[in-house]
Amino acid sequence: MSNLNYPTACVIIIGNEILSGQTVDSNLSFIAKRLITLGIQVKEARVIPDHEQTIIDVVNTCRKNHTYVFTTGGIGPTHDDITSKSVAKAFERPYVCNEEARKLIFSVVPSRGPNDSRIRMAYMPEGAILINNPVSHAPGFQIENVFVLAGVPNIAHAMMETLDSRINNGKPIYTKVIHCIAYESVIADCLRDIQNAHPNVEIGSYPTWHITKDRGVKVVLKSRDLNDLEKTEKCIFQMALDHNFHAEEINL
Amino acid sequence: MSNLNYPTACVIIIGNEILSGQTVDSNLSFIAKRLITLGIQVKEARVIPDHEQTIIDVVNTCRKNHTYVFTTGGIGPTHDDITSKSVAKAFERPYVCNEEARKLIFSVVPSRGPNDSRIRMAYMPEGAILINNPVSHAPGFQIENVFVLAGVPNIAHAMMETLDSRINNGKPIYTKVIHCIAYESVIADCLRDIQNAHPNVEIGSYPTWHITKDRGVKVVLKSRDLNDLEKTEKCIFQMALDHNFHAEEINL
Repeated sequence: MSNLNYPTACVIIIGNEILSGQTVDSNLSFIAKRLITLGIQVKEARVIPDHEQTIIDVVNTCRKNHTYVFTTGGIGPTHDDITSKSVAKAFERPYVCNEEARKLIFSVVPSRGPNDSRIRMAYMPEGAILINNPVSHAPGFQIENVFVLAGVPNIAHAMMETLDSRINNGKPIYTKVIHCIAYESVIADCLRDIQNAHPNVEIGSYPTWHITKDRGVKVVLKSRDLNDLEKTEKCIFQMALDHNFHAEEINL
Repeated sequence: MSNLNYPTACVIIIGNEILSGQTVDSNLSFIAKRLITLGIQVKEARVIPDHEQTIIDVVNTCRKNHTYVFTTGGIGPTHDDITSKSVAKAFERPYVCNEEARKLIFSVVPSRGPNDSRIRMAYMPEGAILINNPVSHAPGFQIENVFVLAGVPNIAHAMMETLDSRINNGKPIYTKVIHCIAYESVIADCLRDIQNAHPNVEIGSYPTWHITKDRGVKVVLKSRDLNDLEKTEKCIFQMALDHNFHAEEINL
């Protein structure tokens, strides 16, 4: 599937807990699926520690290489939440208290006084545009093409769902998934021929043989050209007939 | 937690299905936890597409920057499995049929003749050392400091479990997790003071308040110095007493 001139995205997952294996990230999958509905492919993801210079370097590299960058994690009130400050440094902008964010944070439970550490969550790069947090009020923010989201999955997902209008849609990406009850090695040669004949369709092959009830291969077709996609799907079903195995489309 | 002179690792997750959100990666967490038992921290992970030049570039960058690199995905028999060939190119080594690998692959189900696409799984960089696959026989391989594993989780995990003897242990990393029944913003200032007083201990703070039964904050302590770790743990329990909330250690 050619991607020339289409918008791309990068997801930066920030957090020692992901790199230590303590937490399994689920934000990448959610963000990627959401962006695909907007016609945007995530072309790269990075998992990096809560380390200032690393965050600065990776944000600066990725925002140059991609149309959109989404970061998750590190915008809470504790000492290890250094994403906002690091992003401000990446953009060489002052790290300031955003008045609108401050009001949102204290809208439910009022401030407990000058030592209230929640005030840290109102600090962000000067000029940042807030991202609404329908779950716990402390907002994320956008600065140029970088969207800074929370790490807690239900908050990250809720924030992501507010962003559609800020993202310029790419040409839609269509997906079909066909479950083939066959060994991957049996279909490999034929699948390669089908791929070569349909360069506008990205064909992925994922064995699921280790799960008894789901034995077989998931063949995933993706394209921005619906006509090509449907032709390719027909070839997959023809392959199933020729090789005498069962194949059926799975609804996503 | 200072990491000067300690071995580091990088995990490269190769696969369009992860970047499209179709599949949630679980290999990073497994590999990271396994390495921590050997005293090695994963300092970086990358998720990249099945794209040759990207694989070459990322493998070459990461193998220079880290003691160990682990890749997952893309070593099956289909057209989109291009990891082995790309790694051969990264190392500028011929991509050849490994005789030992060929025998292993055909040990259970014999070859069906010259068109048997399983033979592709025996191709790897010249001089690679096999990584045993106790699940489905097609091996992974090691070349210098790069370990090339399958993407299917139970195979990747089984391969990883065979590698302990090939990895030079770092100084052990000790971990303690304390579940605090408190809002993160309540403990943030105190936690910062504890962190500042114990620079050899990495203190992470992860709110779990969205899950009712598990409401609170998981405070994760990591250190290569067990004495420092235990002192820090005492400070956390003292904080709980001072602020009048419940705290208890969680067994990992």
